[in-house]
Amino acid sequence: MKASYYEGNKTFTVKEKEMTLPAEGEVRIRVAYCGICGSDVHIYHGNMDARVSIPQTIGHEMSGTIDAIGEGVKGFEVGDKVVVRPLDARLEDASDKGFSHIAKKLKFVGIDSEGAMQQYWNIMASIVHRLPDDVDMKLAALTEPVAVACHDVRRSGLVEGEVAVVLGGGPIGTLVAMVARLTGAKVIVSELNPKRIKMLRGLGFDVVNPAEQDLLKHVSELSNGALADVIFEVAGVQASVNTMTEIAGIRGRIVGVAIHAVKREVDLKMCFWRELSFIGARVYEPQDYEHAIRLVGEKILPLETMVTAVYPLSEIQKAFDQIAQNPSGMKVLINCQG
Amino acid sequence: MKASYYEGNKTFTVKEKEMTLPAEGEVRIRVAYCGICGSDVHIYHGNMDARVSIPQTIGHEMSGTIDAIGEGVKGFEVGDKVVVRPLDARLEDASDKGFSHIAKKLKFVGIDSEGAMQQYWNIMASIVHRLPDDVDMKLAALTEPVAVACHDVRRSGLVEGEVAVVLGGGPIGTLVAMVARLTGAKVIVSELNPKRIKMLRGLGFDVVNPAEQDLLKHVSELSNGALADVIFEVAGVQASVNTMTEIAGIRGRIVGVAIHAVKREVDLKMCFWRELSFIGARVYEPQDYEHAIRLVGEKILPLETMVTAVYPLSEIQKAFDQIAQNPSGMKVLINCQG
Repeated sequence: MKASYYEGNKTFTVKEKEMTLPAEGEVRIRVAYCGICGSDVHIYHGNMDARVSIPQTIGHEMSGTIDAIGEGVKGFEVGDKVVVRPLDARLEDASDKGFSHIAKKLKFVGIDSEGAMQQYWNIMASIVHRLPDDVDMKLAALTEPVAVACHDVRRSGLVEGEVAVVLGGGPIGTLVAMVARLTGAKVIVSELNPKRIKMLRGLGFDVVNPAEQDLLKHVSELSNGALADVIFEVAGVQASVNTMTEIAGIRGRIVGVAIHAVKREVDLKMCFWRELSFIGARVYEPQDYEHAIRLVGEKILPLETMVTAVYPLSEIQKAFDQIAQNPSGMKVLINCQG
Repeated sequence: MKASYYEGNKTFTVKEKEMTLPAEGEVRIRVAYCGICGSDVHIYHGNMDARVSIPQTIGHEMSGTIDAIGEGVKGFEVGDKVVVRPLDARLEDASDKGFSHIAKKLKFVGIDSEGAMQQYWNIMASIVHRLPDDVDMKLAALTEPVAVACHDVRRSGLVEGEVAVVLGGGPIGTLVAMVARLTGAKVIVSELNPKRIKMLRGLGFDVVNPAEQDLLKHVSELSNGALADVIFEVAGVQASVNTMTEIAGIRGRIVGVAIHAVKREVDLKMCFWRELSFIGARVYEPQDYEHAIRLVGEKILPLETMVTAVYPLSEIQKAFDQIAQNPSGMKVLINCQG
């Protein structure tokens, strides 16, 4: 079998690797596709070298087929189509209050441990979810980021008729907008990149380029002056942190999806005045994964548009190099079946 | 009758005023006591001259007795002991989504319109709440700030067994701590002022002076490493904004009680990482007032300790001058019955 390895210094290699049987409690998955996540790009840029163990196989946005089953594993058969929820919470303790998905000692599979960018992958069965038999395996590789969006929208409490604004229309922002729209809410996406704006408009979204149009005015008009009920802060920059409190109406809920490397200036007076809530939202819980699987399986979301390129495993280096040069792209997949 | 007037430039006068009959929908209240709120002190310092109409009678933390009843008013009798919920939401509209207590065009009675620091006060009956007949009228003047605390604690969702930290043990922080303790939660108060620390310890609170003791360590020990479930940010300074995210455990709820005049640096990454919520909380809703009236009426809270001084209406100038010179004081009342 072939496996890719992050070697540090923006370099990936692809090597022969000996295939092993799954250990007790594990399954072996023949990987179909593995998407490249923003965090994988961070790894490529060397920003997470303290967390990965070079050389390491990375990747967690995958789809695949059960290929072998380890001792003690129930509920799976060889040939089952599956995805992995890449959260290893085996070190969870009581002080995590049952929130295993954000447990203090959580390990993220594919970052803190071996990932899916290889032909076969041995992984503990407890975090494997079954897919419907007729699922499209390319789209199934988007289950993980769709689950992020499901979690974000669930945390927001968004309901039909409300006005939601997604600040940042990259891959996660677009998926959040798609899932938010399913609630029956009116969804506005704020995005600067012309290519992304075009794609989002093609998906039927109300898109504002805040460099050219007054977002606050637009939100106010759409909401009859009530402003936004929900804001998803996905862009992760100071400008969107400024905007999030400006466009939030009374009792508005702001969901913090982005990772801010530095502290941000926040208008806490506005949070007080309008009784806003800022709600942090990280990864997903099992129910979000099941929700995402249903959305992918039943083709409820227009996910095809999201996939901008597919590279064979042998060209993983090229895939990462291209992403680094192209800020407009959405989701790039690695085909691990080669 | 006598009425006091804020005249600008840290100056109050007390003058004779003609008593008038209550208009339609109003009652006339013989004011018993009126507490001096932090916002009243802001008025004294000239910080709110754009909002008040000089000369103006201010004051909203009052207790009193119904003295006359205007046309069309039901449910009150002369002699009823009452408090006023000083929120005039008559300009509320649909875009306020039913949250009349924070409506965009809300007027705060005693700031945006005539207040209670006078012998008799004509006020619309719709915001008057009845007190039990045997209530202590001095303590009843604390109903308004107690209602703030009830609202803050309700917004937090604090329940028995949780760990709550109140950042700032001034008048509002102390009342929040008292109401929080009633839930059965473990309550820690963080306060720097030695006199306030002494008073809070006298009330049986677990008080940390963060200049002398490691608050994070103390919270961690008390919670078996889970950190705080709820934080009330009452101090309103950058240091407490830094602390609030440090001491919050997984899914912790931070209630923003303080008014921050400037934007603050907030650790949004920690909000994301631990899925924290920051919840703005402003004034109170009618149910918070009813809760506060019950707590005051049934003497459930040790409110006597809060009253550090009582001045007759004729000495209102002295009362404000003393507060400005004494940052350790808690609640100062004006006796309007003189």
